[in-house]
Amino acid sequence: MMVPPAVNLGIDIRVLAEAEGMAAQLAATEIGDYRDAETVLRFADDVDVITFDHEHVPQKILRQLVDRGVAVHPGPDALLYAQDKLLMREKLSELGLPVPIWARVRTEDELQRFLDDNGGRAVLKTPRGGYDGKGVRVVSAAHEATDWFAAVAESGSDDGLLVEELVEFRRELAQLAARRPSGDIVFWPVVESVQRDGVCAEVIAPAPASAGRVADVAAQIAGDVASGLGVTGVFAVELFETTDDRLLVNELAMRPHNSGHWTQDGSTTSQFEQHLRAVLDLPLGATGCTQPHTAMVNILGGPSVGTLTDRYADAMEIHPTVKIHNYGKDPRPGRKVGHVNAAGDDLDDVVYQARAAAAFFQD
Amino acid sequence: MMVPPAVNLGIDIRVLAEAEGMAAQLAATEIGDYRDAETVLRFADDVDVITFDHEHVPQKILRQLVDRGVAVHPGPDALLYAQDKLLMREKLSELGLPVPIWARVRTEDELQRFLDDNGGRAVLKTPRGGYDGKGVRVVSAAHEATDWFAAVAESGSDDGLLVEELVEFRRELAQLAARRPSGDIVFWPVVESVQRDGVCAEVIAPAPASAGRVADVAAQIAGDVASGLGVTGVFAVELFETTDDRLLVNELAMRPHNSGHWTQDGSTTSQFEQHLRAVLDLPLGATGCTQPHTAMVNILGGPSVGTLTDRYADAMEIHPTVKIHNYGKDPRPGRKVGHVNAAGDDLDDVVYQARAAAAFFQD
Repeated sequence: MMVPPAVNLGIDIRVLAEAEGMAAQLAATEIGDYRDAETVLRFADDVDVITFDHEHVPQKILRQLVDRGVAVHPGPDALLYAQDKLLMREKLSELGLPVPIWARVRTEDELQRFLDDNGGRAVLKTPRGGYDGKGVRVVSAAHEATDWFAAVAESGSDDGLLVEELVEFRRELAQLAARRPSGDIVFWPVVESVQRDGVCAEVIAPAPASAGRVADVAAQIAGDVASGLGVTGVFAVELFETTDDRLLVNELAMRPHNSGHWTQDGSTTSQFEQHLRAVLDLPLGATGCTQPHTAMVNILGGPSVGTLTDRYADAMEIHPTVKIHNYGKDPRPGRKVGHVNAAGDDLDDVVYQARAAAAFFQD
Repeated sequence: MMVPPAVNLGIDIRVLAEAEGMAAQLAATEIGDYRDAETVLRFADDVDVITFDHEHVPQKILRQLVDRGVAVHPGPDALLYAQDKLLMREKLSELGLPVPIWARVRTEDELQRFLDDNGGRAVLKTPRGGYDGKGVRVVSAAHEATDWFAAVAESGSDDGLLVEELVEFRRELAQLAARRPSGDIVFWPVVESVQRDGVCAEVIAPAPASAGRVADVAAQIAGDVASGLGVTGVFAVELFETTDDRLLVNELAMRPHNSGHWTQDGSTTSQFEQHLRAVLDLPLGATGCTQPHTAMVNILGGPSVGTLTDRYADAMEIHPTVKIHNYGKDPRPGRKVGHVNAAGDDLDDVVYQARAAAAFFQD
């Protein structure tokens, strides 16, 4: 999704992709494994700056890139906190940022003690590799984590697992922001993000009833995260709005994020254009809304038969105002294969339009 | 500029380009001559539908494509009227559409008679190959066209030249529209287009004081043109608003057009997305404005030293709200190398922003 703004701005973009797909149809694309140092280093020889659409490039390779003098944004020091949730929690606590009660647990006994101290239920997370609800489990007894402790022991790691209080929250919010290497930072309006089965289903921008304190606190947190962790590029801070009116940091994403897809059709500067500007250390674009309300609804799984494009005739006929984004991925249960944005004056209407249009692509 | 919406919609787009450039950096791009039948026919073997970003593909090749069963939009019958201004004038007159007084002139005598009958000055045009003011000349005596008549005679053509009255107009307007092969048609708001030295310099969308009669008449004309000429895809009708309050058809463009570039950042559906939808015979997108006013200012010529991207740091710093479109073409005096869009609530402000940002790229 960085390709369209790169084309508009005349920026020569190259993509190192894992497999064939939309991105791989572009001339400058190379197919290769981001975990292979030789592949990544060779790819980097031809570019001015390296960035990512996920956080999984190994630290060792990132540091080799930096050692070679390649501009890497976000840099390895910042990405570390997006790669390891235990390090992230430690760092955020050290910075004094509001987080759920958490602990590193290495044994079932330690986990049980945390459960006993925190209402008998908690969220257990593997520090690395989690994504869209994977590597996350709600537990109410330590023996429910026997397999994960065994896996950690087998891996030879002494890291343990991350356990967090089960936060009582009213809703989930996300604060999208962008920061240049030279330090300037901009914030989009805070949004509400609706999760289903641990996966983002919808985003409402701006979050209803968020003007004032909520928006200010969310931006303040994101600003502290960015400067405290040295983030560059676009990043998202996922937040819990608790039932007792606090904002707690849930997760960090150091890249353009699903909670920011609404910006493609609802903000003066999309998160993808902004990310290009930020990693190139260009001045950042305006982050205001072009219309009062924008709704983003994910297309999860896709159609049971055929592809998304087979449904265009029907979806476009009934919903001429929505913007359809198709990732060109094969449909698969639960997979994010696209999203729909709708923007306008009336919140109920844009939510309806985006949901109804997205429904054409799922069955 | 069709590439970004194609990527968003997951449509596999291939480009037959004349030379290296931005479009040529895309994987599916082939470098070749659109006047070479073999090149075009081979290119067409791999695609579902063929369309154009200019009208100059020879009729003979277009008809060969159609004979092979390739979907071609707009088709050769329609494109003919965009390729030949005399045929266009004849057809529009036959359809009863409002056009300037015109004549086909084959000799200096005929031209002189037209001049004598129409106030002593007129606009002379070569029927084919004109573009951005080229092939257009204001004459007040027949001998000023001696060279063009000699060139026509030398070419062996009996077509002659097109002469038109010098219309007294208040301003120039453009009506952008899109039509599907199955017949549905949609219209964007009519815009004002400001020309300098025969080249479009700025566009204001919607045209100030155009609501009501002007908008209705402009859309009516474009609808009649589309159905009368069998146009498919996006097209633009350039209009004169005369000092005596008539709208006259100046030129036709059967493709996404400079007067529609504002739609990229000011309309729910950009002309480039719409063109893809139309030529694929998909339902057309909504054509409303996302903000009350949008201004488009062309970047003509580009910087005297370096490239457009060299100026990004300054332009973006001062103008965070504008959208910069860079065609990746080498700067050359008078050449359209990009454009700037600005959208917002205040017409004066958006015009100022777009002009001031565009000025950073010209010196």
